[in-house]
Amino acid sequence: MTAPTPSADQTVDIDLGACAYQVRIGRDLLRADEIAPWIGGAQICIITDDCVAPLYLEKVRDSLRDALGDVLSGKVIEIILPHGEQIKTLNGVARVFDAMLAARCERETTVLALGGGVVGDIAGFAAACYQRGVAFIQLPTTLLAQVDSSVGGKTGVNHARGKNMIGAFYQPRRVIADTATLDTLDRRQFAAGMAEVIKYGIIDDADFFAWLEANIEAVMARKPDALAHIIAQSCTSKAKIVARDERESGVRALLNLGHTFAHAIEAGAGYGQWLHGEAVATGIAMAAYLARGIGKLSGDDEQRIVRLLSAAELPVSPFAGLAADKMLALMKGDKKVRAGKVRLILPNGIGNCEIVDDYPPKLLTDTVAHFTAASS
Amino acid sequence: MTAPTPSADQTVDIDLGACAYQVRIGRDLLRADEIAPWIGGAQICIITDDCVAPLYLEKVRDSLRDALGDVLSGKVIEIILPHGEQIKTLNGVARVFDAMLAARCERETTVLALGGGVVGDIAGFAAACYQRGVAFIQLPTTLLAQVDSSVGGKTGVNHARGKNMIGAFYQPRRVIADTATLDTLDRRQFAAGMAEVIKYGIIDDADFFAWLEANIEAVMARKPDALAHIIAQSCTSKAKIVARDERESGVRALLNLGHTFAHAIEAGAGYGQWLHGEAVATGIAMAAYLARGIGKLSGDDEQRIVRLLSAAELPVSPFAGLAADKMLALMKGDKKVRAGKVRLILPNGIGNCEIVDDYPPKLLTDTVAHFTAASS
Repeated sequence: MTAPTPSADQTVDIDLGACAYQVRIGRDLLRADEIAPWIGGAQICIITDDCVAPLYLEKVRDSLRDALGDVLSGKVIEIILPHGEQIKTLNGVARVFDAMLAARCERETTVLALGGGVVGDIAGFAAACYQRGVAFIQLPTTLLAQVDSSVGGKTGVNHARGKNMIGAFYQPRRVIADTATLDTLDRRQFAAGMAEVIKYGIIDDADFFAWLEANIEAVMARKPDALAHIIAQSCTSKAKIVARDERESGVRALLNLGHTFAHAIEAGAGYGQWLHGEAVATGIAMAAYLARGIGKLSGDDEQRIVRLLSAAELPVSPFAGLAADKMLALMKGDKKVRAGKVRLILPNGIGNCEIVDDYPPKLLTDTVAHFTAASS
Repeated sequence: MTAPTPSADQTVDIDLGACAYQVRIGRDLLRADEIAPWIGGAQICIITDDCVAPLYLEKVRDSLRDALGDVLSGKVIEIILPHGEQIKTLNGVARVFDAMLAARCERETTVLALGGGVVGDIAGFAAACYQRGVAFIQLPTTLLAQVDSSVGGKTGVNHARGKNMIGAFYQPRRVIADTATLDTLDRRQFAAGMAEVIKYGIIDDADFFAWLEANIEAVMARKPDALAHIIAQSCTSKAKIVARDERESGVRALLNLGHTFAHAIEAGAGYGQWLHGEAVATGIAMAAYLARGIGKLSGDDEQRIVRLLSAAELPVSPFAGLAADKMLALMKGDKKVRAGKVRLILPNGIGNCEIVDDYPPKLLTDTVAHFTAASS
């Protein structure tokens, strides 16, 4: 549990063979000298949303124009989507295709995703499918996107019948996580990102979990060194897991700790009511509750998990507005279901989780009933 | 130029490293013992169209139910699309997603594409994107699909602004080309497939081209041995090229001989007016005309190409209904355009083509003017 001594900028290798790339992490990295080397063709398509655009679009566009002016011959296309999860549908992607085709984007276009997870998921899926795949660079501007979407190549959109049901595995050429963009993130969004950060401690790294317990105030105060450390640590944990299992058949499922609960909470409440990270925090609390019920997790460890999530200003308690039976039905429609059985990721202890589908069904029912109690 | 002595069934290896698979070619192969070994999970989703369904759907479904009944637990989903190119849009794929989600298809679902190129392109793209990728088997029932879509993993849909603008590279687990399905193919569809067959002779294999010249009557009479030979030969040629260039950055472009012209003809006339293979045949004739104009191709070889395409009952002459300037504008919108320049595949001789973009622009204008003369 030593304190980190991070240098200003960090680089995490994502080792996926032919698709290897690097995540750059540091303050004020949205600069042409960081981005331009990864742009191949003569056209750039920046996809962002109407919250992020006023903050960073001009800066990114102008610096790239300055650096690449001759090569680009003026072709910087900007697509500004409405912010929020509602646009993350097949229709939202269709809008991107329409705009790219109207602007005559060629196959050598580089798509830049400037924004949070929703922008990254849509832009990445559009890049994966536009003319069967164009170059893709991620410029994540939320903590969640920096620690989660940065690694693993998951892109895609929601369907009325479930979250992330349509998509592609598609790796970016480069991810540039500028921690200065977190200065403008509201507290709720920042906390949501912390759910995934804490998750890495629970599934992969007890030392990191302990470091978070000791340094949660510095993190929540967004001290630059603490931010760089948690982002690099999270990307490193995720990269290690993804490299072992690029297409999510085995160990990668551990990354879904809390997510099967979370997807049902988000879908049941209506997308956009809960932030994804908030639902994940409650989902992790539910997984811990169930794991303790089975006897896999000690009461002490359950308490440490709940306490750290709470310290990160995340919801971990029973919640209103979703009936138990509806939540259970939604969980059974999730894509982690195998042969009709809801597979769960459960903690055996801090830093160690496993995939479980032979738990007593009643424990799942009880857990959901406990957490949705407030709604009856 | 020896006659082939094919065995009843043939197997062509498509060697794409991690994604290697085999194309099976022979008569009456739509059998459970050919298909069932490639089905992994407990659910099958057969995607077909309303022309093919009455002919083969019951046979495929019932034989798989017999062979896999216990495993499948009744879960065979059938999606019957309207036939024709009109359904090959993002909305068409959305219909498939809706049906698969309504049927609660899980991630272990195997998608079977039973039909021609359109069914294969939509089903393959749906398989690529459904829950970020499920298993995919192709059962092509047209000559074009058997010799073209069988190899290379191209899937996707059209956009109002261009053909195949949205899609994915996605490899099937297995392709099963039953030559008996060609018995029911109308003459026009069969001829359309021959355009691609002849293309392989021109771009890759002078001996095969000569074999086709000598055996075109047996082929057009659909003698089983001749069919198995041309399909295996075509898949082998395509596999050789694709293996060298899975994502179409270099040599794979040769497969597009005639296609930049063809896409403009199809788009200009309205999708569905020309069959793809018919447009490719005329496109090859245009490429040969232009290549002779530059001095790359002899007049004799141009004549051999035009004569063989004609013998396969394909259009190779100037055509009505599309103005030269419209066709040129469409060609400049094609996705093979690099930096605004229309890149063409041109024959240097039978069995030898190259990618050319330094031809005199006037020759392209003249070629288009010559072939669209009838429309003025």
